[in-house]
Amino acid sequence: MDKIKKNNAVVLLSGGMDSAVCLDYAIKAGYNIYSLHLNYGQRTESKELESFNNICDFYNIKNRLVVDTSFLTQIGGSSLTDSNIEISESQLGSGSIPNTYVPFRNANILAIATSWAEIIPAQAIYIGAMEQDSSGYPDCRKSFFSAFESAIALGTKPETEIRIITPIIDNTKSQIIKYGHKNGVPFNLTWSCYSNSDKACGHCESCILRKRGFKNAGINDPIEYY
Amino acid sequence: MDKIKKNNAVVLLSGGMDSAVCLDYAIKAGYNIYSLHLNYGQRTESKELESFNNICDFYNIKNRLVVDTSFLTQIGGSSLTDSNIEISESQLGSGSIPNTYVPFRNANILAIATSWAEIIPAQAIYIGAMEQDSSGYPDCRKSFFSAFESAIALGTKPETEIRIITPIIDNTKSQIIKYGHKNGVPFNLTWSCYSNSDKACGHCESCILRKRGFKNAGINDPIEYY
Repeated sequence: MDKIKKNNAVVLLSGGMDSAVCLDYAIKAGYNIYSLHLNYGQRTESKELESFNNICDFYNIKNRLVVDTSFLTQIGGSSLTDSNIEISESQLGSGSIPNTYVPFRNANILAIATSWAEIIPAQAIYIGAMEQDSSGYPDCRKSFFSAFESAIALGTKPETEIRIITPIIDNTKSQIIKYGHKNGVPFNLTWSCYSNSDKACGHCESCILRKRGFKNAGINDPIEYY
Repeated sequence: MDKIKKNNAVVLLSGGMDSAVCLDYAIKAGYNIYSLHLNYGQRTESKELESFNNICDFYNIKNRLVVDTSFLTQIGGSSLTDSNIEISESQLGSGSIPNTYVPFRNANILAIATSWAEIIPAQAIYIGAMEQDSSGYPDCRKSFFSAFESAIALGTKPETEIRIITPIIDNTKSQIIKYGHKNGVPFNLTWSCYSNSDKACGHCESCILRKRGFKNAGINDPIEYY
């Protein structure tokens, strides 16, 4: 009559569409969910935190951790975290790394997730990175995640086994939108805009990727734009 | 008449003896020094910060960054950061990982150092880890640092090249004490005790390693103990 013990997963949940879809994958894979949100001092943090909590409520997730990573702001050097640098209009397709890049952000995120995962203990970390639609961020590539997984295996206790799971790594934005639409992911609760917190600006890199994704998927975006 | 451009190094400086010796190696290797100190909510933080600043003053280092990593406290699970868990008397030689272990701490430290190093830009990160005298922490091993260096290479911009340098990885505590004594490293300014901030307790794991190191080196420890 013992309950079957479910595995645990730490799911990185920013409040955006990608991580919401990623969460849906982790739930369908049967994991107990531990949601992790990072506040790294971005302009739209309060809106993203609201989205995080709304998405957790929607899926009835009780294990939530919000971590202050404002050291990334302190270190600076990025327009996402340094209010003295202007957000660039979309540079997509230019082949260069846009100035919204927070250096080595995913490594910081994964290191935090691993510390939590080792304590829980959790057997998986879900992260909603996409290699193709990632604006060229180097820490969104499969090769990076694979290298980090090796670092986890070597840098944690012998009994700890943690996999990094990137369910949407090969997807385009329009593919994750189609998946989410079909599976009831609450895109109305998600937030993508880098600039605004009331209505999405429609012009920043993240808004352009989102709008293009919905257009390519032939689905209406449920959020409002200026 | 151009000045020869020196390379930059981020040096992790906790306020303890190992990182102070490590800093000496980085200076002797000719790097411009960027000192990084982490406050992860440990019991003795204010004392360690004081040591950090005193050591920087001693070496005339102007580039200093103190980063709040209290998320490690938040995540908990360790007696160093969770005041509800008692510090264990030394378990050295027991073969088990002591409960002063903060999970995956060095990965978090290195991820932060890498974010800073990419912006500076710096070509090296110095960390004073020692494999043999590390109390069995998995993230103090050469194999871990090597794996993390691969993750840095893959997760940063193409033009970024950062080496992790562990100059004392093969040393024992008594060897670094001999080196520091010979090279004028100000051990009187360093702090090791996990428990106290006025006079060192002499009983915690870190004090025992320090005292044993000085004894084996045949050198007097300049700090006071209860």
